[in-house]
Amino acid sequence: MKNLGLCTDLYELTMAQSYLEHGKTGRAVFSLFVRKLPENRNFLVSCGLETLLERIESFRFGDEELRYLKSLGKFSDDFLDYLREYEFKGEIYAIPEGRVVFQNEPLIQVEGSLPEVQILETLVINTVHLQTVIASKAVRSFLVSQGTSLVDFGFRRAHGLESGIYAARASYITGFAGTSNLEAGRRFGIPVFGTVAHSYIMVFDSEEEAFRAFAKSFPGNAVLLLDTYDTLEAARKAVQLAKEGVPVVGVRLDSGDIETLSKEVRRILDEGGLKNVRIIVSGGVDEYKIEGWLSKGCPIDAFGVGTKFITSADAPYLDMAYKLVEYEGKPKVKTSPGKATFPFKRQVCRFYSGGSMEHDEVVRYGEEVEGEKLVEKVVENGSLKVKLPGLEEIRESLMEDIERLPKELKTLKKHEYRVIIK
Amino acid sequence: MKNLGLCTDLYELTMAQSYLEHGKTGRAVFSLFVRKLPENRNFLVSCGLETLLERIESFRFGDEELRYLKSLGKFSDDFLDYLREYEFKGEIYAIPEGRVVFQNEPLIQVEGSLPEVQILETLVINTVHLQTVIASKAVRSFLVSQGTSLVDFGFRRAHGLESGIYAARASYITGFAGTSNLEAGRRFGIPVFGTVAHSYIMVFDSEEEAFRAFAKSFPGNAVLLLDTYDTLEAARKAVQLAKEGVPVVGVRLDSGDIETLSKEVRRILDEGGLKNVRIIVSGGVDEYKIEGWLSKGCPIDAFGVGTKFITSADAPYLDMAYKLVEYEGKPKVKTSPGKATFPFKRQVCRFYSGGSMEHDEVVRYGEEVEGEKLVEKVVENGSLKVKLPGLEEIRESLMEDIERLPKELKTLKKHEYRVIIK
Repeated sequence: MKNLGLCTDLYELTMAQSYLEHGKTGRAVFSLFVRKLPENRNFLVSCGLETLLERIESFRFGDEELRYLKSLGKFSDDFLDYLREYEFKGEIYAIPEGRVVFQNEPLIQVEGSLPEVQILETLVINTVHLQTVIASKAVRSFLVSQGTSLVDFGFRRAHGLESGIYAARASYITGFAGTSNLEAGRRFGIPVFGTVAHSYIMVFDSEEEAFRAFAKSFPGNAVLLLDTYDTLEAARKAVQLAKEGVPVVGVRLDSGDIETLSKEVRRILDEGGLKNVRIIVSGGVDEYKIEGWLSKGCPIDAFGVGTKFITSADAPYLDMAYKLVEYEGKPKVKTSPGKATFPFKRQVCRFYSGGSMEHDEVVRYGEEVEGEKLVEKVVENGSLKVKLPGLEEIRESLMEDIERLPKELKTLKKHEYRVIIK
Repeated sequence: MKNLGLCTDLYELTMAQSYLEHGKTGRAVFSLFVRKLPENRNFLVSCGLETLLERIESFRFGDEELRYLKSLGKFSDDFLDYLREYEFKGEIYAIPEGRVVFQNEPLIQVEGSLPEVQILETLVINTVHLQTVIASKAVRSFLVSQGTSLVDFGFRRAHGLESGIYAARASYITGFAGTSNLEAGRRFGIPVFGTVAHSYIMVFDSEEEAFRAFAKSFPGNAVLLLDTYDTLEAARKAVQLAKEGVPVVGVRLDSGDIETLSKEVRRILDEGGLKNVRIIVSGGVDEYKIEGWLSKGCPIDAFGVGTKFITSADAPYLDMAYKLVEYEGKPKVKTSPGKATFPFKRQVCRFYSGGSMEHDEVVRYGEEVEGEKLVEKVVENGSLKVKLPGLEEIRESLMEDIERLPKELKTLKKHEYRVIIK
């Protein structure tokens, strides 16, 4: 899509038309935040800002979009003219990507004329929600990975191609070694990895022939998939082939009792002199399984992390909202039960104790405060006013935050971090 | 993206290069199926075929894609030439969209030369998985909706823009009245709906003024959002405004104790002479809540169904695989524990009893069988050979299948349908 103007909900545009008709074009601030963390999350990882800024630039209405809107019979010509000229000219305040964040902290704050910022709602939530959901899930595997490598194998079961591509980006910043997803590799420069599928093993007359063939095609890259027929038998074949000079660099286990199999396979490989051959495990892998296997001493070197991470299966969504907090300098709150909001543009101040995060305070933007300020102005009058960090820089930033995370937040058990709203 | 060639996993291409190097270019059949239904699904709804066929046409490799692949240093010039010429020329067999389907039934079967069909794996799974996941979730709300209207309000929390757009499509075929998603409206001709957000209410000096303003802007469309401050108070204002001639057509409740509020609001509206004003409920709506509220007699006319449906929160993925089942006319199976496959290209035959589905049999394709045949050949030599149904036709087809579903499968309780694999 060239123009993203229709990537919005109908009501954003009906509201905007009505705002214009009633002169409600004063300066407004909307805040994107998560009301409450899911049960299985101790913190979130901010992710998706760069994608959002690209999309806001493409949030325009061309002939095709306007023709469709006209056909709905709801919009005035004046309003369609407004949309034809639409181009975001306001301010964006954001917590940079790759930061540890919590409930009620404004990830993104958008300021501009009311209709201008209202109609971005759907795009802002959709874009930042996806990558924040995925990064916040992926980082949990990293936290329990004990130095093993993690690779995103999830593309096939992501919710669409786009979701798979951005999930590769989101997981890379959380410490994944790379992805199997080639489009993500090309687009973001993320390292790509892969082995072979069962189908490859099955089309050769024997498993052994398949192993030989793949090693011949990719001599530096022969990771043998062991579980098509009998995993331990296949491990013995790998040893035999290595003795004949076939360059085996790794083996992959994709099914079965991984605890028993990984230990048995390691023993077979070691006894066969293949101490350097890595064991890669895939198939239903998530942070709970990684922690379980590693705590039982399973000799696994790398994990292909797939479906459960790429759909964030245990918490597939966040209670993320984009709410009006200020209009013409006045505080705006709603008082709906369970959905109350806090007024005004905000800064998040982080306080440390002994090198460890101690608590955060969410204060009015511009107030004199102690602590590390997380929110920065990234767009002014519609133009980017900071140099956005590259992926490696975002990743390093998150690694620094993880260093400073209180120990109990780095586990898979629920712990609350203190966020004070002032 | 113009060319979708990189929307695949690295290993698909390394395997394909190795197949070509070892003369493994015989005819292969891959089958896309779901091994096991999730705990909360009695059946699935086939969805995504049309999107898949469009994407397979775009699965090509241009200069940009080839330059990236060359840069990886893994691929031979011969193989890159193969990719440059790549264009799918094989056969596709599919169960049409909008059919009720079950475990082990081949949704899509792709036949062609081995490398040609192998490299489509990621694209095939990703595309059909998303829409089948969503349609199979959405239909559950329809089954318990008792004639109320359902509207997709989920775009903002979908896993990406693409996921939101296709989810609107997938839910429309399951009986949703429409969507709030304008891009889906434009692209698929789905009816679009919307009301107003809390922000709209909050920027006016009073709730009443906001109600008046919106009704003035959209006289035929004034659905008043009641829960920004005090829901019952707002309902009384709606009555008052209607008495003054403001054309109120509906009210929306987005938070609070919906059971109590919907009954109280109905009473207030009825007593105020607004018997025709519809009550629309949104906010955390899913099939469980719809069934619960309606079973308690809540006077709700329509639901905005959002986050939980658009992420299929209780079953965000299916155990869907694309497996080699036949190569050069010979059966192919893997015997991995829990992941065993059934060989050969297949037909699904459905047997009815007294107008109700009785059981399905999955037989070899081309065998003489009784029963309704679900699988049809849709692509031959790379070209579409059937006229694909439009969305309305797909929707009607699903409605017919729902008519014929055994009663117990139409509930939210788990029931198994018999699928015999021959």
